Amino acid sequence: MAAALQEELLEVGYGGTTIDRIAKRAGVAKTTVYRRWGSVGQLVVELFAEAAGGRIPIADTGSLEGDLRALARSAVAVLLHPQSRAIFDVVVREAVHDPAARAALTDFFAGRVANAAPIVERAVARGEIPAGTDAAEVIRQLGAPYYARMYITGDPIGEADADRAAAVVSLAARAGLLKSS
Amino acid sequence: MAAALQEELLEVGYGGTTIDRIAKRAGVAKTTVYRRWGSVGQLVVELFAEAAGGRIPIADTGSLEGDLRALARSAVAVLLHPQSRAIFDVVVREAVHDPAARAALTDFFAGRVANAAPIVERAVARGEIPAGTDAAEVIRQLGAPYYARMYITGDPIGEADADRAAAVVSLAARAGLLKSS
Repeated sequence: MAAALQEELLEVGYGGTTIDRIAKRAGVAKTTVYRRWGSVGQLVVELFAEAAGGRIPIADTGSLEGDLRALARSAVAVLLHPQSRAIFDVVVREAVHDPAARAALTDFFAGRVANAAPIVERAVARGEIPAGTDAAEVIRQLGAPYYARMYITGDPIGEADADRAAAVVSLAARAGLLKSS
Repeated sequence: MAAALQEELLEVGYGGTTIDRIAKRAGVAKTTVYRRWGSVGQLVVELFAEAAGGRIPIADTGSLEGDLRALARSAVAVLLHPQSRAIFDVVVREAVHDPAARAALTDFFAGRVANAAPIVERAVARGEIPAGTDAAEVIRQLGAPYYARMYITGDPIGEADADRAAAVVSLAARAGLLKSS
């Protein structure tokens, strides 16, 4: 179902994607799809929520900036995949007004923060950044520049944005600007 | 029309807002509204584009961080207004897939960058940050954390986010991390 949905989104866009077309492509009865999901948006959000729980391996490069660079590069690489981007776009759009989509996106980020917390803990243990640095704030600040490019200013994203975000966030963390408030 | 639209969005939400209800509240014939805009989304985007061209006064506090703090605080204050937030939410949502909404939001940011460029020029002239610092990147990075909270991680925003963004961005600019690439 996920593959059929991604292919449809890429082929005809969100505006053209229908439950009927997804069901046909996936080779299942459309009543089955309708019974479970009322709309394409709901289907996207549920598939996103299912897929988003996976752990991503985090690098241990020996420095905060190195670890954050690897993390940001892998996030940007995923967002540069047309299939992942098509799904993420719909979730971000739906999350503006739909509570289920909002919850899926918020949960996704909570998972990302939990996954990446060791990066911050190791940097504190090395004495690279002050104790009390907020891992959630570090991860939020790391992603903010490329998400803002994608959904607010409408700029392209690339590896340079990941590297700049890692440099900026590690500098800010070292200066004690990312402590829990 | 703008006031009627904002009141409708606040009262019944985007899902409940219709051209008929807006026309009725504004006291105009609904055919007039339909003729000009096909959907609530189009109406929101056009009113946003009209309103977004206005210049905002920029402070001259004598330091980059002070100027950026004043700018970020005024942006956050606007976004904390339920009426402005309701409009901005719809534009961000529509901009994910609709080229007209995307253009309106991109133009809005180009205007914000042009408006705030003197902040960066003055900081370069004072020797506070290196020549070649990219004003567009400074303004994008300044807004990114609170936009990411609003539309990606789903966190509340407040003055503390504005102040933190100003501190982080001025530190990054001083370190030469926000030059044109």
